[in-house]
Amino acid sequence: MRQVIGSQSPSLNVLSQEPLVAGTPMSLLDGQVVPTNLFFIRNHFPVPAMDADQWSLKVTGKVRDEFSLTYAELKEMPRTELEALLECAGNSRAAIQPPIEGLLWDHSGVSSANWAGVSLRTLLDRAGLLPSAQEVLLIGADRGTEAGESAEMCFAMSLPMDKALDPSTLLAYEMNGVPLLPEHGHPLRAVVPGWYGMTSVKWLVEIQVLDRPFQGFHQSEYYVYRDLGADDGSPAERVTSIKVKSLITWPGRGQMLEVGTHRLRGVAWSGAAPVAKVEISTDDGWEWNAATLQESGSRHAWQQWEYVWEATEPGRYLIRARATDEMNNSQPVSAPWNFRGFASNSIHAVPVVVKRPH
Amino acid sequence: MRQVIGSQSPSLNVLSQEPLVAGTPMSLLDGQVVPTNLFFIRNHFPVPAMDADQWSLKVTGKVRDEFSLTYAELKEMPRTELEALLECAGNSRAAIQPPIEGLLWDHSGVSSANWAGVSLRTLLDRAGLLPSAQEVLLIGADRGTEAGESAEMCFAMSLPMDKALDPSTLLAYEMNGVPLLPEHGHPLRAVVPGWYGMTSVKWLVEIQVLDRPFQGFHQSEYYVYRDLGADDGSPAERVTSIKVKSLITWPGRGQMLEVGTHRLRGVAWSGAAPVAKVEISTDDGWEWNAATLQESGSRHAWQQWEYVWEATEPGRYLIRARATDEMNNSQPVSAPWNFRGFASNSIHAVPVVVKRPH
Repeated sequence: MRQVIGSQSPSLNVLSQEPLVAGTPMSLLDGQVVPTNLFFIRNHFPVPAMDADQWSLKVTGKVRDEFSLTYAELKEMPRTELEALLECAGNSRAAIQPPIEGLLWDHSGVSSANWAGVSLRTLLDRAGLLPSAQEVLLIGADRGTEAGESAEMCFAMSLPMDKALDPSTLLAYEMNGVPLLPEHGHPLRAVVPGWYGMTSVKWLVEIQVLDRPFQGFHQSEYYVYRDLGADDGSPAERVTSIKVKSLITWPGRGQMLEVGTHRLRGVAWSGAAPVAKVEISTDDGWEWNAATLQESGSRHAWQQWEYVWEATEPGRYLIRARATDEMNNSQPVSAPWNFRGFASNSIHAVPVVVKRPH
Repeated sequence: MRQVIGSQSPSLNVLSQEPLVAGTPMSLLDGQVVPTNLFFIRNHFPVPAMDADQWSLKVTGKVRDEFSLTYAELKEMPRTELEALLECAGNSRAAIQPPIEGLLWDHSGVSSANWAGVSLRTLLDRAGLLPSAQEVLLIGADRGTEAGESAEMCFAMSLPMDKALDPSTLLAYEMNGVPLLPEHGHPLRAVVPGWYGMTSVKWLVEIQVLDRPFQGFHQSEYYVYRDLGADDGSPAERVTSIKVKSLITWPGRGQMLEVGTHRLRGVAWSGAAPVAKVEISTDDGWEWNAATLQESGSRHAWQQWEYVWEATEPGRYLIRARATDEMNNSQPVSAPWNFRGFASNSIHAVPVVVKRPH
């Protein structure tokens, strides 16, 4: 396991109590892994009461052999470990103007952890997919009613077959070396690297193989890109792959620095491809220079970067960090507007003041 | 006194505990006056311990007769009542991108109240201004050290003579019919209508008439419009007059409405001149229609407006409200960027969903 930071125990920024939604303090992104108790939380419904000893996971649908597994049986299956970040699809929503529907996340809806569990593929191989298998539905135990909807529903999301069979798509029972906390999906959750966090379904109770596209509320109505205008009933593009992004973790917004040399730091990631470069501007985007990008050891973790800035003149500066991935996706100055403000990845800018030493 | 709303007792949105900074819930702007305990608070230093019986106000400087007043003596002077709003210079800062230095106020740093006290002019007349008098300095009892500054300072702001002598510039000891609460400046505060709130100095202990421009930190360094770039030591324009603005108080951000007729509501104000009109767009700014503007009964209060919207089609809508004052100042789509994000008055936009009735 990599370094776990945050010994000073700052607290989560709570955006909502019920359902629980809370963000990781920005300063804690300044390491490779976020401590478990400070990992961001985005739940849709109340945390369900789960007892691992009573729990089982059913694998059903378009498979040769349906079966179910107890927690003990699951832990006897081949163990996979993975360092991976999760990012809420609504992360950085506050950077989109005019502000749209949804919780006003700053940048605190992203965290990275060491996960351990069983590859989803291992279970699908054991069940045996029928030729008609098209999608794999992940069903959580959490239930409730969403605003504007009349019926109670559970939280469920599906994966296309290639994503479901990707060996890094995990059913995780451990996070940073210990069993999942209740608010993170105990006893079992999905971890779908490279996709926004809503597909990493928590409190898993059933894996259902489908022969047709899933049409659940969260997948086809909520986590979709929609523009303004009258609703003509047409389907909308689903939110899936995490857009390329970098964050400046030091200095903080409005920080006072003295004239001299400063080591700017941050993290960068992309769902589509590894990060190729991070560039830094200290003059509001006129001149860009490459930051030093560290290897992360995992394709699905963020990469830390550092940039040495010679701040020679007192004044007011806007520091910007722009990441580009190996598929040449880069960050926009303004992320495209969509009704729920998903996938907000505009270039992060941090204003600082440089002063003469006292 | 006008209607005081808020019987359900929601709470202030606390942005900082020390110094205390807290915003009025948006739904409470939906009346003519905000309840005293929910009026927004923007302090720079800890609330000083003040005892009205021990307190006195000194009037000093370039006057014929310096004098001081006890609380009892002050209350025997001619009483002036005034309905007026105060707005924090940083209000709506969160709407400016990229986010700048300072507390990320949404739109909750504005409130209106009924004030009672003595016109500042009454005291200046009694003291007798000398011909050299140029400015009137308002000195508060609150003290502390600002970030990046080494010296302790008190909070003080000056007024040019025309603003100081304006009969509506008030020294207030009552707010909504009761003595000021400690966090609002007990026993005495300034209320400078038409100017952003930082000049309405709280916990007043001295009125000093100056024969030269005041150069205090908050006035010449903090509450000024500055751009990015090296600091060449040149002075910057001071933040004074409240920019024209309107807010949509109903519906709220992301609210679900049914197909049908809805009465949109809000408030509008301007420091420079009375509000001439408020226009509403329900189609993201293509078509604008006049709202019905109510008389407020006071030049310095906000004006409520209402607009009847026939929402005939289900869909996603962005409602915008744009105010224009009698000097033809109107609200920009994006407010000009300045380093501390002061005077942010871009057009308020609220996304809503219109659904078919169940």
